Amino acid sequence: MAAAVIAIDWGSTHRRIHVLDAAGHVLASRHDARGITAAQPIDHAADMAAIRTELGDLPILAAGMIGSARGWVEVPYLPCPAGIDALAAAVHWVEPGRTGILPGLCRGDGMAADVMRGEEVQLLGAVIAGLAPPDGLLCQPGTHCKWARLAGGAVADFRTRMTGEMFALLRQHSLLGAMMAGDVADGPAFRAGLADARRGDLLGALFGVRAAVLRGQRRAEDGAAYASGLLIGSDVAAEGLTPGACVHLLADEPLGTLYAAAITAAGADVVRIDAQAAFVAGVAAVFSRLAASLPLNRSG
Amino acid sequence: MAAAVIAIDWGSTHRRIHVLDAAGHVLASRHDARGITAAQPIDHAADMAAIRTELGDLPILAAGMIGSARGWVEVPYLPCPAGIDALAAAVHWVEPGRTGILPGLCRGDGMAADVMRGEEVQLLGAVIAGLAPPDGLLCQPGTHCKWARLAGGAVADFRTRMTGEMFALLRQHSLLGAMMAGDVADGPAFRAGLADARRGDLLGALFGVRAAVLRGQRRAEDGAAYASGLLIGSDVAAEGLTPGACVHLLADEPLGTLYAAAITAAGADVVRIDAQAAFVAGVAAVFSRLAASLPLNRSG
Repeated sequence: MAAAVIAIDWGSTHRRIHVLDAAGHVLASRHDARGITAAQPIDHAADMAAIRTELGDLPILAAGMIGSARGWVEVPYLPCPAGIDALAAAVHWVEPGRTGILPGLCRGDGMAADVMRGEEVQLLGAVIAGLAPPDGLLCQPGTHCKWARLAGGAVADFRTRMTGEMFALLRQHSLLGAMMAGDVADGPAFRAGLADARRGDLLGALFGVRAAVLRGQRRAEDGAAYASGLLIGSDVAAEGLTPGACVHLLADEPLGTLYAAAITAAGADVVRIDAQAAFVAGVAAVFSRLAASLPLNRSG
Repeated sequence: MAAAVIAIDWGSTHRRIHVLDAAGHVLASRHDARGITAAQPIDHAADMAAIRTELGDLPILAAGMIGSARGWVEVPYLPCPAGIDALAAAVHWVEPGRTGILPGLCRGDGMAADVMRGEEVQLLGAVIAGLAPPDGLLCQPGTHCKWARLAGGAVADFRTRMTGEMFALLRQHSLLGAMMAGDVADGPAFRAGLADARRGDLLGALFGVRAAVLRGQRRAEDGAAYASGLLIGSDVAAEGLTPGACVHLLADEPLGTLYAAAITAAGADVVRIDAQAAFVAGVAAVFSRLAASLPLNRSG
């Protein structure tokens, strides 16, 4: 089938570009480090022209941090609950029918504030693609880990934890850094971190990363795995999973394996989902809702 | 009374030097930024000579990070429980009778690892000076906040939380930094942080620092106070204080006011103690135990 739309998952540090046909199949993909915090300022209009020169003169739909205050155009957050129809209706057209930016989501007023940009496309796409049920709990680990509750196929509510950023902060800038030189994998040190996370004293347990090495109770090369277990374990524990609950997990390696271990250790079940496939399904669904009503250019 | 000993509280970034008479009265004090992580390497022997040239040819007793692996001489930790006699008996003499370094404390084997260096002198000194009871809970806020349980005048057990370091990490290096530009004081934003800390979801609440500003629910200039409330509130909450418990607090401003507010909000009572006076009393007590048995030089 002919190319119909270019979908861009445009994050802080990287972006993924997919050429889709009208049925949502991926015809080509690109991946580069031109996230919105890329060192060189991006001339977004010129960048779009370059993408079209390479991949085809197609409509472009972009999601993620590109729609933030630090991106190209700040697109207002859509309040929860939000489904795919609301997302499509709130697309901001930089150039009508040609270049659109999807909104992010926020929790509604009166609740503790939270925001997402880009993850909502994966969440809604996962349901549309049949990868996740319309009512369920989905987890997207990363720099800022998202936990979203879907109801009737819409994002009903969500919570963000700065688990990944905290790990990076501790390793790069804290006094624990020297004790966090090793690799992180699911092993005894990671599992010890998961267990200690259940005490609910993260600030105390983190100092213990250093103290245990100074006292000869843990090897420095196990510190990163232990600290990862503490942080991921704290993240999962705060979610308050009930035994037998099911979490649909959208994660690449190695986070997928680590979160699956933490969720399973908390007594819940895990179903792993292909996050890229979910994103593509989400953008394809938005595109199909827009294609009928807009004078979109097609090529190919 | 004549000068008898020079007491140095030698930390990571700063040190305080006191000249004491045999009764433990302070005759002179110095404060400088020559902590063990000072940019220029310190020639400790030359430094001691300079201190004696300025303050008198006296015995020197130093406590704190000077006795760590990154200090002058690594002095083994003394296991808890430890009182002032044990501390005095474990002084490491760099030069016998002339220059001694006090040991730090560690939790005994079989418990989660923890260490301190320097705080033990304040803790034991607070009891000796009559500032704290021999059986009680003492709190020393800072980069690494210590909570110590004393029994019979000895340090029975303690727990460290990296509360202060975490605040600095977040403000200097995290994505929350731009939302943490304001001053920290006990006010509505700090109190909101204390309240949210009780939910026990620190990683989630920290992301909320950013989200609340993005959503217009909190001013960026209140972010630092709110984050401080979250961290100090989490620190206090992890201690599991029972209503009516009493915490003896060794802290300068502004941490003294902030911790007192957090502890009071948790339903416990606070007694504030002069940390410098406690340190001086601790070193004086160690010195008095050593003076009888060692050929110490005196001057003045």
